[in-house]
Amino acid sequence: MRGVLVGRFQPFHLGHLEVVRALRHDVPERELLLVIGSAQESYTWENPFTSGERFEMIARALAEARLDRVTIVPAADVRRHALWVAHLVGLLPPFETVYTNNPLTRLLFERAGFPVESPKMVDRTSYEGAAIRERLASGEDVRELLPPAVTTYLEEIGAASRLRLLKPERPGPGGATFP
Amino acid sequence: MRGVLVGRFQPFHLGHLEVVRALRHDVPERELLLVIGSAQESYTWENPFTSGERFEMIARALAEARLDRVTIVPAADVRRHALWVAHLVGLLPPFETVYTNNPLTRLLFERAGFPVESPKMVDRTSYEGAAIRERLASGEDVRELLPPAVTTYLEEIGAASRLRLLKPERPGPGGATFP
Amino acid sequence: MRGVLVGRFQPFHLGHLEVVRALRHDVPERELLLVIGSAQESYTWENPFTSGERFEMIARALAEARLDRVTIVPAADVRRHALWVAHLVGLLPPFETVYTNNPLTRLLFERAGFPVESPKMVDRTSYEGAAIRERLASGEDVRELLPPAVTTYLEEIGAASRLRLLKPERPGPGGATFP
Amino acid sequence: MRGVLVGRFQPFHLGHLEVVRALRHDVPERELLLVIGSAQESYTWENPFTSGERFEMIARALAEARLDRVTIVPAADVRRHALWVAHLVGLLPPFETVYTNNPLTRLLFERAGFPVESPKMVDRTSYEGAAIRERLASGEDVRELLPPAVTTYLEEIGAASRLRLLKPERPGPGGATFP
Amino acid sequence: MRGVLVGRFQPFHLGHLEVVRALRHDVPERELLLVIGSAQESYTWENPFTSGERFEMIARALAEARLDRVTIVPAADVRRHALWVAHLVGLLPPFETVYTNNPLTRLLFERAGFPVESPKMVDRTSYEGAAIRERLASGEDVRELLPPAVTTYLEEIGAASRLRLLKPERPGPGGATFP
Amino acid sequence: MRGVLVGRFQPFHLGHLEVVRALRHDVPERELLLVIGSAQESYTWENPFTSGERFEMIARALAEARLDRVTIVPAADVRRHALWVAHLVGLLPPFETVYTNNPLTRLLFERAGFPVESPKMVDRTSYEGAAIRERLASGEDVRELLPPAVTTYLEEIGAASRLRLLKPERPGPGGATFP
Repeated sequence: MRGVLVGRFQPFHLGHLEVVRALRHDVPERELLLVIGSAQESYTWENPFTSGERFEMIARALAEARLDRVTIVPAADVRRHALWVAHLVGLLPPFETVYTNNPLTRLLFERAGFPVESPKMVDRTSYEGAAIRERLASGEDVRELLPPAVTTYLEEIGAASRLRLLKPERPGPGGATFP
Repeated sequence: MRGVLVGRFQPFHLGHLEVVRALRHDVPERELLLVIGSAQESYTWENPFTSGERFEMIARALAEARLDRVTIVPAADVRRHALWVAHLVGLLPPFETVYTNNPLTRLLFERAGFPVESPKMVDRTSYEGAAIRERLASGEDVRELLPPAVTTYLEEIGAASRLRLLKPERPGPGGATFP
Repeated sequence: MRGVLVGRFQPFHLGHLEVVRALRHDVPERELLLVIGSAQESYTWENPFTSGERFEMIARALAEARLDRVTIVPAADVRRHALWVAHLVGLLPPFETVYTNNPLTRLLFERAGFPVESPKMVDRTSYEGAAIRERLASGEDVRELLPPAVTTYLEEIGAASRLRLLKPERPGPGGATFP
Repeated sequence: MRGVLVGRFQPFHLGHLEVVRALRHDVPERELLLVIGSAQESYTWENPFTSGERFEMIARALAEARLDRVTIVPAADVRRHALWVAHLVGLLPPFETVYTNNPLTRLLFERAGFPVESPKMVDRTSYEGAAIRERLASGEDVRELLPPAVTTYLEEIGAASRLRLLKPERPGPGGATFP
Repeated sequence: MRGVLVGRFQPFHLGHLEVVRALRHDVPERELLLVIGSAQESYTWENPFTSGERFEMIARALAEARLDRVTIVPAADVRRHALWVAHLVGLLPPFETVYTNNPLTRLLFERAGFPVESPKMVDRTSYEGAAIRERLASGEDVRELLPPAVTTYLEEIGAASRLRLLKPERPGPGGATFP
Repeated sequence: MRGVLVGRFQPFHLGHLEVVRALRHDVPERELLLVIGSAQESYTWENPFTSGERFEMIARALAEARLDRVTIVPAADVRRHALWVAHLVGLLPPFETVYTNNPLTRLLFERAGFPVESPKMVDRTSYEGAAIRERLASGEDVRELLPPAVTTYLEEIGAASRLRLLKPERPGPGGATFP
């Protein structure tokens, strides 16, 4: 018996962790598939961390929180919404339920016949990836928004300086890399 | 003897229908290839309807208007403008003329040696896909802008609620689907 | 009410035509979607004719045979079998039934919940695309295997000499094109 | 501390399981990343099972064998050998060592500076995916080559009949699916 | 001994030329690889000129300036930043140094172990591709910003009128090409 | 005034060099574009050397032979023959003539309106890439078939041992890399 949660986790924050904890607590025998969406992306402002870096920060946060029966699976985008559900069904081990608060995700999975539930979320305003990236790039302290293991890991990989480089006013490689 | 019209038809509206009617009337022996562009796209704000849904709404509207000798062909994007004409030439049965009011389409086909003509268009301001999508999402009545068969079909597939979900302030799947 | 037939039609031969005729005759109110598979392929031994050339030869053969209510739709491959049915469902207007004698096509559509039926086929041995391509490349007369309109069209486009060039012992462009 | 093992696992057999067991036993504190290669492939003779089916059969076999600290990660091909190591480094959490008996895998990882070790293998002749697929397609009993949980799972999903369909003399969808 | 400079060169202007001249002058025995980035793009506002047109304008400008030992190489994007350095290493002949003022390019190459140097740049404000495209589209005289050979070439290919067509308020082909 | 020669150059041998020399000699003012086809391929038996390695071996061989006015351009495959000529026209600076002995290359370029000429070739039997790769893998001496600079370069990069690994009986990475 498995449920699926999809996110990009840029980065994995306490809002994510609390949803995972609640779902694991509600139905202890249910395994969770935590899907790292847009796994092919990295080094952009929207997706600064590689799939592997996101895998590592989630694994550390789950170990720290002593949450088990959570399986992390990276999933590249398929870029065609009409194929997205079929793409995940082919990629993942069998699952029965989808947890999401995103209305389009709900629509696509419901059309495909899956039961979809809405996880209760803690205060969405602060626990929001884009806002956390902004604050990291500005050098603000975001420790109250992240699991301690994620804070440590982001320091190890130099996340703040990477985010400063990636802010939209600076062009990316393969684009305007040369004057 | 065939002519080509390319559009995305998101949705197919009366402006499209009147252009088709005029072209069929002007040269009755000329078959029209009505190309559904960006056929691979769906469930986005710019391209809410699948290729198949667009095919169906056009087929119903043409039947209702008793327009024959119009062939509908879906065409995925090639994403490289320099290859676009070669892509359509390989995909479609032979054609002689291109009808377009888009200056880039004109440029690319003229460089490839095709005669390009500008169809006369009815009032462009109201018959514009983006404006119709906005009005549909707002729950406005757009019956005066659409062939009756398209209005019926859009109701059948729940177009208004889909468009509300897809408006840009809401993220798509594989993106920020999870908090 | 629509049924789907998928083929590559390299080339469209009398075996194909007879299946179409029988399906149209059995249920006259049922429209057929004749899907040109591997539409992105051309100028190879397995797929010598472009999507557009195949579209043209089928359209001429259907007109010659006075078969109507048949809609031709080119479909590029999706290259991932697990996504193939979702790809066709998104591309094509709604359909209810699939006609195929291919066991894998049957398996994939049945898993997706579509009714699948097997069309009765005329003598498979001679009406087989690969054998017809071989005979065309050898300069043999294949008129008894093709609708007359297809024979004429293949002559117009120089099919026999193209097939001679494409036989596997000769390398393709972008491959060993230069000594 | 992590090591990487890459395979296609079509299917996961006792040869695979014994390598995993030995590596886990040799260095108990080392986590293993078991990478499902060619994850995008399915329903072909070389790759009959989807990524998700392979994930499930491996997870069941590891649970049955009470092997922990093994993380399963599906990885689509990148189709350019020169990018393969960079692709895996971006996809996977950090790892130090690669285990392989494949000389090209060894070459590519060594050029990228990774230590590569050769796991000891049990009798390669029988524990070989292609041979097991052949025997499954022929209806032979292959229980002595598979973990019991894999045998059970392959029966659940009808593996033998799928393999019979996929044997190369039968064409696939999008190819010669239509007579 | 080779150094690499990456740019999109839309168009190649005097700022680019002066950087090339300075690098060639500083170390005369060092060959420069001038990489045309985003080579697959054309006929968009950000990338109006094809790879071939950019190749031609650079070749003429270098000949006019009598700069030798500069090799022009087009490079399509790889669209995954984590693979970008591996992509260029596989594409280009061996090189030792990278010249860039772009911080992300610096980051990615430094992580891969390459020495990165910052070329001194002339006044960045005027020598900026986007500004030159704007001025070209407005019909302004930009001769003081371009090598004479580039000015001549842009006139030959009708660059000003192409840029007017491509300005963002006008949709592109495959998009909203039809009313 | 430019002519185009396309090859994969796996490896660049004396047969290639003599064609280049003859074309340069015949029309000294004509620049040659030497296109490295299948540039995205490497580490396979058919395409063992990366684009960059092929670029380097050709550059050294041309310098050794004191041949100038030859421009090397890597070109990835487009995988759709109907788009191949448009792909090269967009990638390369303007050219007038194509030199090839490959009948399909001739066909595709002639259909696009380019004059095509057949370069005179030295003994095709020995100067053939596949045969040279076989002999290299077997450890045979192939110095009489290669420019001296290529022989030296192949030794530098360990070509013989790489070719032994890549011979078809050994599987590639991402395929059967794990037992």
